Amino acid sequence: MNSSVIRYILGSVLKIEAILLLLPCLVSLLYREWIGSYYLGTAVLCFLLGALMARRKPENYVFYLKEGCVATALSWIFLSFFGALPFWISGEIPSLTDALFETVSGFTTTGASILSDVEALSRTALFWRSFTHWIGGMGVLVFLLAIIPLSGGSHINLMRAESPGPSVGKLVPKMKYTAQILYVIYFAMTVIEIILLLLGKMPLFDAVTTSLGTAGTGGFGIKNDSMMSYSPYLQWVVTIFMILFGVNFNAYYFMLFHNFKKAFGIEEVRYYFGIIAAAIGIVFFQLLDVYGSAFQALTHASFQVASIITTTGFSTSDFDLWSQASKTVLVLLMFIGACAGSTGGGIKVSRFVILIKTLGKELHSYIHPKSIKKIKIDGKPVEHEVVRSTNVYFITYMILFSASVLAISFEGKDLITNFTAVAATINNIGPGLEMVGPTQNFGLFSPFSKYILMFDMLAGRLELFPLLILFHPAIWKDLFTQKFTPRKS
Amino acid sequence: MNSSVIRYILGSVLKIEAILLLLPCLVSLLYREWIGSYYLGTAVLCFLLGALMARRKPENYVFYLKEGCVATALSWIFLSFFGALPFWISGEIPSLTDALFETVSGFTTTGASILSDVEALSRTALFWRSFTHWIGGMGVLVFLLAIIPLSGGSHINLMRAESPGPSVGKLVPKMKYTAQILYVIYFAMTVIEIILLLLGKMPLFDAVTTSLGTAGTGGFGIKNDSMMSYSPYLQWVVTIFMILFGVNFNAYYFMLFHNFKKAFGIEEVRYYFGIIAAAIGIVFFQLLDVYGSAFQALTHASFQVASIITTTGFSTSDFDLWSQASKTVLVLLMFIGACAGSTGGGIKVSRFVILIKTLGKELHSYIHPKSIKKIKIDGKPVEHEVVRSTNVYFITYMILFSASVLAISFEGKDLITNFTAVAATINNIGPGLEMVGPTQNFGLFSPFSKYILMFDMLAGRLELFPLLILFHPAIWKDLFTQKFTPRKS
Repeated sequence: MNSSVIRYILGSVLKIEAILLLLPCLVSLLYREWIGSYYLGTAVLCFLLGALMARRKPENYVFYLKEGCVATALSWIFLSFFGALPFWISGEIPSLTDALFETVSGFTTTGASILSDVEALSRTALFWRSFTHWIGGMGVLVFLLAIIPLSGGSHINLMRAESPGPSVGKLVPKMKYTAQILYVIYFAMTVIEIILLLLGKMPLFDAVTTSLGTAGTGGFGIKNDSMMSYSPYLQWVVTIFMILFGVNFNAYYFMLFHNFKKAFGIEEVRYYFGIIAAAIGIVFFQLLDVYGSAFQALTHASFQVASIITTTGFSTSDFDLWSQASKTVLVLLMFIGACAGSTGGGIKVSRFVILIKTLGKELHSYIHPKSIKKIKIDGKPVEHEVVRSTNVYFITYMILFSASVLAISFEGKDLITNFTAVAATINNIGPGLEMVGPTQNFGLFSPFSKYILMFDMLAGRLELFPLLILFHPAIWKDLFTQKFTPRKS
Repeated sequence: MNSSVIRYILGSVLKIEAILLLLPCLVSLLYREWIGSYYLGTAVLCFLLGALMARRKPENYVFYLKEGCVATALSWIFLSFFGALPFWISGEIPSLTDALFETVSGFTTTGASILSDVEALSRTALFWRSFTHWIGGMGVLVFLLAIIPLSGGSHINLMRAESPGPSVGKLVPKMKYTAQILYVIYFAMTVIEIILLLLGKMPLFDAVTTSLGTAGTGGFGIKNDSMMSYSPYLQWVVTIFMILFGVNFNAYYFMLFHNFKKAFGIEEVRYYFGIIAAAIGIVFFQLLDVYGSAFQALTHASFQVASIITTTGFSTSDFDLWSQASKTVLVLLMFIGACAGSTGGGIKVSRFVILIKTLGKELHSYIHPKSIKKIKIDGKPVEHEVVRSTNVYFITYMILFSASVLAISFEGKDLITNFTAVAATINNIGPGLEMVGPTQNFGLFSPFSKYILMFDMLAGRLELFPLLILFHPAIWKDLFTQKFTPRKS
């Protein structure tokens, strides 16, 4: 393994985090909170450590899938650890485990919190929490692509490790150019949401943090009641933007180049809107009895469906009290998740489309055993490797899911709490049902369970394998002992 | 499609059912219950209808996978419908839906009941219920193989449709001979269990029905409290036989020919015992606090683990009251199920072994992208087709599972009830948790939900596809319109 390039990347990531940490310092200055000094201290620490690690250039920049995975997984762990330091040393979150949980939840865009009184936090801390969502939504390593001159198919390897989805018709940003455009779209959409929220008379601080949380499909609220006390206008703005940030960014890319036919033709996106419409329909009719007016029922149904399928996790209502059918719909949406190539989590709509088509193909083969029918998406046959890796992904996901539910069951919480706690973390959503419902929080779990759930959040965000191989003994042997020699090919 | 051979097979199946229905008539005579006349009437009806359908020999006996699936699915539906008639016309189960549910549950070896007072049934009905387990455990069509001279790879096609498991190293009984040996083993083991139960002073009727329910891994109890009031000796006998009937029958086949090395070398069987031991270990330690003595804790832990993993469904204790970790273990065991080639249901141990090895192979390929490593079972590489169909099976299973949970959620029962009701039926177990827990029953579901759950039971028993393709429009068009011409190959 090329350990020197991994060291170099980790150093660069720390330097980036140092820069990112300056933003909460600025917020601190604005609101005259002294707590910003802890963020500044952490920034300095990150910068020094990063500079030390990235001081020596790597012997070579050759970089394969293995290196991509290890670099990505370690980067996210580093980011989370150093991002948690200011929460902890400032004393706002007294336990290091809790501070880590909150930061992992932030960067992975989960939004699950261990805090029972969010409003007690300083503005600086609230901003940093929301900002981690925004950073995590697009990923840090993709950003690095524009800076480090890697070779050996390495960009693709980094992307594969950090980007969500099964690379079906994925916009492979092998060029700096594409990555830059994606960041510009992301930034522009965030700014538009801020403006629309300000127009609805939301305070600036709320508008900024809410938009950061929406853009990253994170879901940290800065109020104890999440979005419940905001006006319907504000709730609708957030609903629409949650849905927009859950769309495959390829669609925006195509639109930017006026290729609207291609943008609206993306099959995944059409399924995504179809699922949203169907789910809102079911929940809406279930809610008609609960809320006085159809408008209210529609507002809450749309908000919650959008929030769960995009894996954001904001709430306007305690859906734990809704009907069983509504809750079942929401739980199923948790697993489906948003589009690949969006900032959302979950298994991803495109994977489900492939899985459903795999089932259809199998039935077809029972009836016509000699026909050779390929699964098609967007009119083009899907490569066998994509179908295979989607199957393997689903299997791995289910195994990890079951093992996590079992692991946290030992502390005796009820099955629904455990099941939805894992669903809400591995799919990067935030709230679940029962003891982790929208008005509850994750603070009541033991440290052991919290680490399991942190693992799930990271595994979900990094799409399982980059994190899992970190626990493979061969990797560690490799990392410290083997001499790296680039393959000839 | 070769409709004429399907008609012929269905007719033969009805004739077999007519003969099988004579056994409860005999029980009726023994216990002087007049109710037996309804069973006799149904037997006559089945025989006449069967004779009518099988009167004309098929034009040819060529028979492909499609025909195999359709014949199997329709046979099981016919069996269930006519098997339900005596319950209904005798008035012992006044609703036809309920009578159907009870019979589908019987033939599919599920054991889920809609009856709140089982002990109120006649001995004849109790015997028929238990006997359906025994019939369903081994399958009816495999039995037909010995009688009907099909051609065109047809035996394999019937076996594929009716036998459990992903045909990994399966003992393909293409010859009458093998099928006969399997029935002999099945019959002999049932008799041995009856004798051992009688030695423990269990009344003859109880011993026979309990053994029939154990052999088919069914789980209908003839007492309202299932097995709770029997002595520990009897409970242990049943525990051991449940485990034995969940073993891949290949093992017994090999043993019969003194090939012990091969019998004990079957990887699936070793995993099966490993999982059982681990599960008993966890549940035992969780139960130590609940029960006074370690022996009692071990008895209940072993019984319930064996009952659930083999998908039998007897109970000696209301495990719905156990600790969350124990319940979680049991719920996970529900999905794993017994060995392929046994009478048990669930996803099957061998499929899980393949799924876990698929995950391992994927991790390996991240580290060594150029290595071509095949998954091995029993030391031999597994064919790609088996791995692929296992993946597809798992995906289809999960989709059907989720859809079923959603469908029954509309009647407003809690999520755990719905989740475990589907798990308990699709895996052919019987009891679930909460409102379908071991001391409850399925009678409280609406007719709509009952039909969904019946579908799940049949789908689980027939391993999904044979039942699913019955709902494919092409099949129906085929069945009634297309002229059948055998393929040349």
